[in-house]
Amino acid sequence: MGILGGTGPAGRGLAVRLAAGGVKVTLGSRDAERARTVAEETRAKWPGLELELLGEDNAGAAEADVVVVATPWEGAVATLLPLREQLREKVVISMANALVREGREMLALIPPRGSVAGAVQATLPDSLVSAAFHHLPAGEMENLDSGLEADVLVCSDHAAATSATESLIEAMSGLRAINAGSLNQASAIEAFTAVFITLNMRHKVHSTLRIAGI
Amino acid sequence: MGILGGTGPAGRGLAVRLAAGGVKVTLGSRDAERARTVAEETRAKWPGLELELLGEDNAGAAEADVVVVATPWEGAVATLLPLREQLREKVVISMANALVREGREMLALIPPRGSVAGAVQATLPDSLVSAAFHHLPAGEMENLDSGLEADVLVCSDHAAATSATESLIEAMSGLRAINAGSLNQASAIEAFTAVFITLNMRHKVHSTLRIAGI
Repeated sequence: MGILGGTGPAGRGLAVRLAAGGVKVTLGSRDAERARTVAEETRAKWPGLELELLGEDNAGAAEADVVVVATPWEGAVATLLPLREQLREKVVISMANALVREGREMLALIPPRGSVAGAVQATLPDSLVSAAFHHLPAGEMENLDSGLEADVLVCSDHAAATSATESLIEAMSGLRAINAGSLNQASAIEAFTAVFITLNMRHKVHSTLRIAGI
Repeated sequence: MGILGGTGPAGRGLAVRLAAGGVKVTLGSRDAERARTVAEETRAKWPGLELELLGEDNAGAAEADVVVVATPWEGAVATLLPLREQLREKVVISMANALVREGREMLALIPPRGSVAGAVQATLPDSLVSAAFHHLPAGEMENLDSGLEADVLVCSDHAAATSATESLIEAMSGLRAINAGSLNQASAIEAFTAVFITLNMRHKVHSTLRIAGI
């Protein structure tokens, strides 16, 4: 799979945990050289693991069958526009959250289409867009020894995208996939990330979401 | 404490769990007779407990020091308008969520002021409004033997409202209060209730929120 804008903390955490789960990962970036460096540094951090993790430009990462959009939310649509044809009929996973910091809190914004994932699906009408990976603490994701255990909500209008996303999640240690319905749910799922980051700032913790009873 | 619009499932669950925790509760309703009947039926369901639970009209329930608004979300502002003077300088807890059903899902709406709690605070500028009790399954709340365990997010612009709300939550068995910041967070907290109800419909469960790591 490929990760667009994958050199930031969110993308790196996803990349290392997927690669550790046996998935071949191409980290994408506007700057291919930077992607290669980050991929190499990540592999070097875990010398005992055979991580299949390479760096490319975003177009290179978009060659994969399943592609995650891990850019900052403001950059998601601009990153995807030139890749529309390449991403046709592929599963594209949106993980960004439209947030703004105000003092000691994060607040949720409402992007056009109601969610970043909705904007991604509108930009890629012929792709199978899902939303996932919103509430995960990046540092714990990146550290394979952190003992992270978290539930990951997945939503999509395409059953194939939901199941492909669930498969990726189940390949990653410590994560459980939960099908949360249609892409309409992305608005509330993304916004709730503001609550998590606010909890983490306020209580000085790295909290995670658990859904009890499922 | 008093519960406005307390004869519905959400209000009843709150009432019985608070009364079981030793809090004196006045259930309010537009129809005082109905409130008295519901209070009596609830007491009769738990003959082994000495529940201090009475029924009154909403104005009677608003006499309490701390008041919960448990009406349907569309009715919250209309219920509160005639009680503005009575609720001055009191803690008022908003628990409603603006939701609409669409097929097999619940979707979150954006009410004026961004959240029901924001609309309640705007209606009661001289009250200390908090938001809490959003993600709780009503049936499990009402059944004291359900083994319910859930985290309850509290947010408010007033420290006194947050701590009064936390005290009520801690009096109820199975619930843990978590301070989630300012009333700005109510938008995301309320909207996330749509995700919970959708999960419950889709997976045929009664799921609850747990925040791990705090």
